[in-house]
Amino acid sequence: MTMTYEEFKAQRLSIDMTRGKPAPEQLDLSQALIDDVGQAGYRSRDGIDCRNYGHVLGLPEARELGAQLLGLPADQVVAAGNSSLELMHDALAFAMLRGTAQGEPWARTADVAFLCPVPGYDRHFAICEALGIRMIAVPTNDDGPDMERVEALVAADPAIKGIWCTPLYGNPTGAIYSHETVRRLARMRAAAPDFFLLWDDAYRFHHLTQERYATPDIVAACTEAGHPDRALVFASTSKVTFGGGGLAFLASSPGNIDWWQRCVSVRTIGPDKLNQLRHVHHLRDRAGLERLMQRHRAILQPKFEALDASLRALLGDVPGVSWTKPKGGYFVSLFVPDGHAKRTVELAAQAGVVLTPAGAAFPYRVDPRDRHLRIAPSCPSPAQIELAALAIGLSLRRALEEGARGAR
Amino acid sequence: MTMTYEEFKAQRLSIDMTRGKPAPEQLDLSQALIDDVGQAGYRSRDGIDCRNYGHVLGLPEARELGAQLLGLPADQVVAAGNSSLELMHDALAFAMLRGTAQGEPWARTADVAFLCPVPGYDRHFAICEALGIRMIAVPTNDDGPDMERVEALVAADPAIKGIWCTPLYGNPTGAIYSHETVRRLARMRAAAPDFFLLWDDAYRFHHLTQERYATPDIVAACTEAGHPDRALVFASTSKVTFGGGGLAFLASSPGNIDWWQRCVSVRTIGPDKLNQLRHVHHLRDRAGLERLMQRHRAILQPKFEALDASLRALLGDVPGVSWTKPKGGYFVSLFVPDGHAKRTVELAAQAGVVLTPAGAAFPYRVDPRDRHLRIAPSCPSPAQIELAALAIGLSLRRALEEGARGAR
Repeated sequence: MTMTYEEFKAQRLSIDMTRGKPAPEQLDLSQALIDDVGQAGYRSRDGIDCRNYGHVLGLPEARELGAQLLGLPADQVVAAGNSSLELMHDALAFAMLRGTAQGEPWARTADVAFLCPVPGYDRHFAICEALGIRMIAVPTNDDGPDMERVEALVAADPAIKGIWCTPLYGNPTGAIYSHETVRRLARMRAAAPDFFLLWDDAYRFHHLTQERYATPDIVAACTEAGHPDRALVFASTSKVTFGGGGLAFLASSPGNIDWWQRCVSVRTIGPDKLNQLRHVHHLRDRAGLERLMQRHRAILQPKFEALDASLRALLGDVPGVSWTKPKGGYFVSLFVPDGHAKRTVELAAQAGVVLTPAGAAFPYRVDPRDRHLRIAPSCPSPAQIELAALAIGLSLRRALEEGARGAR
Repeated sequence: MTMTYEEFKAQRLSIDMTRGKPAPEQLDLSQALIDDVGQAGYRSRDGIDCRNYGHVLGLPEARELGAQLLGLPADQVVAAGNSSLELMHDALAFAMLRGTAQGEPWARTADVAFLCPVPGYDRHFAICEALGIRMIAVPTNDDGPDMERVEALVAADPAIKGIWCTPLYGNPTGAIYSHETVRRLARMRAAAPDFFLLWDDAYRFHHLTQERYATPDIVAACTEAGHPDRALVFASTSKVTFGGGGLAFLASSPGNIDWWQRCVSVRTIGPDKLNQLRHVHHLRDRAGLERLMQRHRAILQPKFEALDASLRALLGDVPGVSWTKPKGGYFVSLFVPDGHAKRTVELAAQAGVVLTPAGAAFPYRVDPRDRHLRIAPSCPSPAQIELAALAIGLSLRRALEEGARGAR
């Protein structure tokens, strides 16, 4: 390494690596969403005045677009506002207060729990914590959650009402669920009759390689396995068009869509159909979206490669250090020797590089081995990523030195 | 009357008078929101990229616009998505599952109740019913809810966690809360320490006469009375710009805004700031909004006058029949002799005019005297309104004849 930690710190840099935000040049790819608004107008294909109230499950052509993207019939797809996180939150809030299609309100029982494959998405865990849902961590392998553990827990405990699933290019490890994992999740026996798979398909089209990975249709798999209402599928265009102004989708069984309509009709008279109309005008269809995603990939892939190359140069020789090389998605997981993640984040912050807090990818923000870091390379430039990787490398080495001194 | 019920029915008309939707010509008033999108762009005044994630409480200039409209500091105003109904639902869902700024989750107690001034807004009552909040009806006078009843109930019962308030041009009676009513709501003793006024200021700028009525600032009144966190104020531009694509606002004490931020940050990374930016560009300020509302009034006032004139001509001589002549808002309440509202709605439907279901303005959809009808004249044309009034008049007379025959 050509620079010491102190020398890096003396540069007084300020780089934010905390969140998986699209870069401005990615947002520019959908400039037509702003420029072509006049062309999109306000009349839907069927003559619906998108300016006015109504259509609580979304504009028909937006639901059809979602159906193409998710491979389900349009009447099993809801097109909503700008955030799938909202839909996930509301699904659990509705289940707590109103019950699912199958059962009574979860809030009436003393204990409600969810399985949380780790490392996982911090915002999933924050929803559980806020709504009073107990979290049970289960390990994630390269092909999805540890299914032995999942099956044993879910079969035994009726308090376990669901599991968070990020089937493709999962946040933050990039795991891709195998066909076998999907099949077992659909088929496993659940002690709770209203057990849910909260299927966050956030990175369905976010490939970083030539190969377009795909996971099996979970709604079909659940239906075949005799659990038609088990899966709630979430997706959005937040990282396709605009992070703050995309469309979110919910897809599930007809029974769950009826349940959702019953619940959400009390909350709203309808989503912003004008933004839905603009999105349909801009993306057109699945092929249109896939063309756009290739342009995203051209921006993102060099950033992931810059990060990987830097980490290899800086940390390739350090025992006990490894990192993921995801085939899609937005994140890299860096695993450091046990007990050194928090200190590395602290030292990086002192050197001007803000990382996601260590532990964020775990329930209650506690990584029991204190060894996982989430790196989000989408927003910074490749040059900034190299600097951030340098900061991480120097901070980790410093943390290991401190540890070694402490152990002496 | 120049026509019989049977003759009217034979025309086979189809008129929908159910909901308070803006008319297309009202939506046209904000065409600039669609046409000028390019001009509004995506950069906020402070350089925020509105396309990306963030700003969970809204774009600063959208919060400032809300502050001007609601007469409160911008840091006490949240600018959100397209629906204040969503904010009301979520406020109660958060209180149920997470507790208010003052107390523990309401869902942990066996009984949670709300006072519902009647006739009131059906969607308020639907939220309570869905979330398992028991509703207690209290009568509405011309100057607001019956405060003797409200004070006695709220002081006595800690299960009563709040009251729905529509302070100005209330849905559906057009009631305007007096200064005295506002003062008493702010000052009254509540057995529940976390008692809320859910203050739905939906028609704050929706005048139908020259006189611009206004109700006192409830947040200030509550603060003066030593109950700073009592009022949650809701408003939106749904009937200013677009019903399906406006901005909603929440305003309250600093303590409640902190609470809201804590709760809503778990649900979303931020609202659609592009639509907020477009709205600021379009409305500019309170004066801009008020100019726009004068143009709405020019469209709406003749419709309310046509309804009033028709009802006078058709029902002016029928004993026990009265109706409101609102000075603002979107609705007219028609009171018919006890026991005849449901049948009138049925007969009108059979004659091709769909009215809001009788009882809709009451908790659990039951009008104990079966005498109230809500009429929504905003969307139909004046000619349709005259036809609808004719249908209502003929249907009510037929219902009264049937009643008289039955009583014989």
